[in-house]
This record gives sequence, structure tokens and C-alpha cells, in this order.
Amino acid sequence: MARPESHPIVRIAELHIDPAQLDAYKAYLTDEIEESVRLESGVLSLSAVAVKGDPAQIRIFEVYADQAAYEAHLKAPHFLRYKNGTAGMVRSLKLIDTDPIMLGAKGTGARSR
Amino acid sequence: MARPESHPIVRIAELHIDPAQLDAYKAYLTDEIEESVRLESGVLSLSAVAVKGDPAQIRIFEVYADQAAYEAHLKAPHFLRYKNGTAGMVRSLKLIDTDPIMLGAKGTGARSR
Repeated sequence: MARPESHPIVRIAELHIDPAQLDAYKAYLTDEIEESVRLESGVLSLSAVAVKGDPAQIRIFEVYADQAAYEAHLKAPHFLRYKNGTAGMVRSLKLIDTDPIMLGAKGTGARSR
Repeated sequence: MARPESHPIVRIAELHIDPAQLDAYKAYLTDEIEESVRLESGVLSLSAVAVKGDPAQIRIFEVYADQAAYEAHLKAPHFLRYKNGTAGMVRSLKLIDTDPIMLGAKGTGARSR
């Protein structure tokens, strides 16, 4: 659980994948998301989508409980397996750090800074 | 609840807000998110963030239960109040339709198409 004084970390990843390797990339990605959410208490959500009409353009919206959870995720074996396994499939990667304004979700209640 | 054969609708909104009106914009936005998640069964999550270092660049990651829920949201009084109230604050708006790959979140379990 996040400490009371901590704030969630939200990052957006924008990826362009080699279209010829898109199915293989998605297999790595869905395994990584399933394992991260199941095994890491500090990974609150990982949401991956493809831009409609441009399926090799992937967007991932990532929410971590706090900075420590984010740093732990980067060292997790399932994340490293994804990162190393897909290195030759990713044509470009842009990571966008953000300041959360409000994260509203069913069940958890709305959270605001 | 979403019907079994339905798929979640995920949309990403990219907005550039007039910096002089940013506080007022965020007040409209947080009200709209709180009300949408609380009042609309088909609004699963609305996550709003600002790009770090460029706070007038807003990104909203929107998840609806299905197409009907998305269309109902566009007609909801709290959405129209936000839309009309912020019309003069928004310098640009880009809406990105997506195909979900995997939406993994704590508590709800991982969902994949």
C-alpha cells in the first residue's frame, strides 16, 4: 500500500512497434501487464491500447502507488523479460512523465492530489 | 454493467489549455470526473494528468464500459457543464480513439480482449 504522504506516479509510454513483429510484441506486453499487476503491490494499473487505424502505435498508461513502487517495477524480472525480449521490436519509445490531476475509477473511489 | 459481448471503449484526450485559465479549467475537470465516475455506471475510469514541466498540456485517459456508455456520457448534464464551461479555455483538443490491448488494474483483475 502507498504511504499516506505518498502520491501516485503516472507515466505515459508512446511506442511505435515494427509492424512485422506486432503480434510477438503484444504477447510480451500482455504477459508483462498480467504479471506486474498480479505480483507487484505497487503497480496499480497498466492500460495498453493501440491507436485506432494505426495498430503499431501503442500507448500505455501506467499508474504506480509511489516512486518506490515505480523503481521496484523497473527491476522486476517480468519487466526485464519484456524489456529485453521486445528490444528489437520497438522502433521508437517516448516516455512522458506527468503530474496527476485526478484519477477517478469505479470501485476505488476518485483520487485527487 | 457491460454486457458480456461488449468491449470497453478507451479514448485518449490531449488538450492544451490557456495557462491563464488553468486553475479554472482544472476545477471544471475534477468536478466532471468526480460526477461522471459516481453517477454513470458505464464510466469505468477517467484519469487526468498534466505533462511534467508543461502543466497546460493535459492528458485524459478515458475508459467506458461499452459504446452505449460512451454515448450516454456525452449527453450527461455534468459533461455538458464541463464542455460548455471550458470551451473558452481550451486552445486545442485532440481525441485519439483506440483499440484496447489489455487493461490491467488492481482489484478488478486484468482484462484483455
